[in-house]
Amino acid sequence: MSMKRIAVDAMGGDYAPKAVVEGAVMAASELPEDYQIVLVGRKDAMLEVLRPLTYRAGSIEMVEAADVIEMGEHPTRAFGQKPNSSIGVGFKLLKEGTVSAFCSAGNTGAMMVGSLFTLKTVGNIQRPPIAGYLPLKGGSYGIMLDIGANADCKPEVLNQFAELGSTYAKYTLNLENPRVGLLNIGEEEEKGNTVAQATYQLLKNNKKIQFIGNVEGRDIFNGKADVIVTDGFTGNIIFKMGESMYEHASSVGIEDELIDRMNYEVVGGSPIIGINGNVIVGHGISSPTAVKNMIRLAQRQIESQVVEKIKEAFA
Amino acid sequence: MSMKRIAVDAMGGDYAPKAVVEGAVMAASELPEDYQIVLVGRKDAMLEVLRPLTYRAGSIEMVEAADVIEMGEHPTRAFGQKPNSSIGVGFKLLKEGTVSAFCSAGNTGAMMVGSLFTLKTVGNIQRPPIAGYLPLKGGSYGIMLDIGANADCKPEVLNQFAELGSTYAKYTLNLENPRVGLLNIGEEEEKGNTVAQATYQLLKNNKKIQFIGNVEGRDIFNGKADVIVTDGFTGNIIFKMGESMYEHASSVGIEDELIDRMNYEVVGGSPIIGINGNVIVGHGISSPTAVKNMIRLAQRQIESQVVEKIKEAFA
Repeated sequence: MSMKRIAVDAMGGDYAPKAVVEGAVMAASELPEDYQIVLVGRKDAMLEVLRPLTYRAGSIEMVEAADVIEMGEHPTRAFGQKPNSSIGVGFKLLKEGTVSAFCSAGNTGAMMVGSLFTLKTVGNIQRPPIAGYLPLKGGSYGIMLDIGANADCKPEVLNQFAELGSTYAKYTLNLENPRVGLLNIGEEEEKGNTVAQATYQLLKNNKKIQFIGNVEGRDIFNGKADVIVTDGFTGNIIFKMGESMYEHASSVGIEDELIDRMNYEVVGGSPIIGINGNVIVGHGISSPTAVKNMIRLAQRQIESQVVEKIKEAFA
Repeated sequence: MSMKRIAVDAMGGDYAPKAVVEGAVMAASELPEDYQIVLVGRKDAMLEVLRPLTYRAGSIEMVEAADVIEMGEHPTRAFGQKPNSSIGVGFKLLKEGTVSAFCSAGNTGAMMVGSLFTLKTVGNIQRPPIAGYLPLKGGSYGIMLDIGANADCKPEVLNQFAELGSTYAKYTLNLENPRVGLLNIGEEEEKGNTVAQATYQLLKNNKKIQFIGNVEGRDIFNGKADVIVTDGFTGNIIFKMGESMYEHASSVGIEDELIDRMNYEVVGGSPIIGINGNVIVGHGISSPTAVKNMIRLAQRQIESQVVEKIKEAFA
């Protein structure tokens, strides 16, 4: 039995290492026996949280990383200057194949830098996006991308997002032929800003995807599209607005199947895609439940072999 | 007693003239006695709806407009070719001062064209935005602009939106010194896309407004800012997403003070501002209640003298 290992940045996030280590222990009880979680961070700090907890022998391992990249640090500078940070070590493990995925609720910028510099993009991918799981009416999920990595996107980049999102959705959501929509402010192809207008033409002529046209703000949760393409500026604002809807509903005691899944904890993280490895970033405020679900997402990506499928698609 | 007259496009919207005329009758029963509603459209069609209804004598008047600009028509072309359309006649009445406001749930593009060509912009305003009333936690409202008129906005244009929104909020929401936020994907001033970064610098140095910095997707409904500045692409998507949240909540029986006000009917319309007149556009699907509230919004704008205040501010 060959072990599948998921590295987790124990020092990443506002409540690290406690929330991360506790979330890892929760995940360990749910993962199959051939999975192992590799906690990356300061051993003494991780051990202090681990010691009173119970978990299956061998389900959790630790790797020392003496340094930490803080949330506010400049991503490129910090990643370069701190090779022994938990993020630096996590990418090293992923690059050398010791682990099959790396998850962090820490500095998202540094996770992007590690993805670009250590793993590198697949084929001719220009800018790897962060793909967000979008809860849809009826209980299923869609994918929206980008949700924050690239604030300005050229049409060519959005066209790549469409292909990436389509392949990602196909293998992780088990959709034969995902319907791809362009987020816009009207249904007609001449609608929208300059970038959206130009992107529409590229998507319409892209034979690798099933383009269904523009989708509007009212369509985001209704399942009109399985994959919604947008820039990281718009996508980020939409995701945070959705999270705030959940927080509001929760604060006034509303329980609802759709709104409850706008809670960031439910999926727990968002993958950076178009790179040579499974990398998942989590919310800075990640709770143990969020970390547990981020690790479960890593498991789903490993099992679906989605990175290999993306490599094949962009070869 | 001098009459204040509000013109309403009786032919505008998916359910016109029925929904519009019925909404006008509802509004007539709520407006003070010195207000009169001027229905603009085909007299026979309007009369057919009006005949069985009851309303105060003199509270509703009709002005004939033989033509109609349909929802799908090209705005500039249709406005130019149909001077006797209800939208064309409405702007004529407003321009000559026969009425103090003009409301339509019809072709928004034609309403923009009429605003630009017939009324003209105030002072050095480059692009008039559509300002949306944003429901805030706790029961009050904020203003978001632009919500759809200008999909691409330069920093200078967004800077004007900030001043316009601030003046509009001051007089219609009675806020002494409205807090203006820039919609962005992070709190720090270097965050965001190229336009947001450049806009931040203009807003920071604009002494005519109280700039409070960036606001994020999670801040849209929490009242961090009274005025949220964004381009018409992002703003439109956010508003439609909010409307769909209400529709979802309504469909599953959720009642909530905040979500209920994401229903477009509650405010009923959105003003085009920065032009020489009170112009309000409504949703294509406007119901009688929506039309009634759109007319009430016109009343509030007339009473607040907001157009005169904007003219003074941009003189």
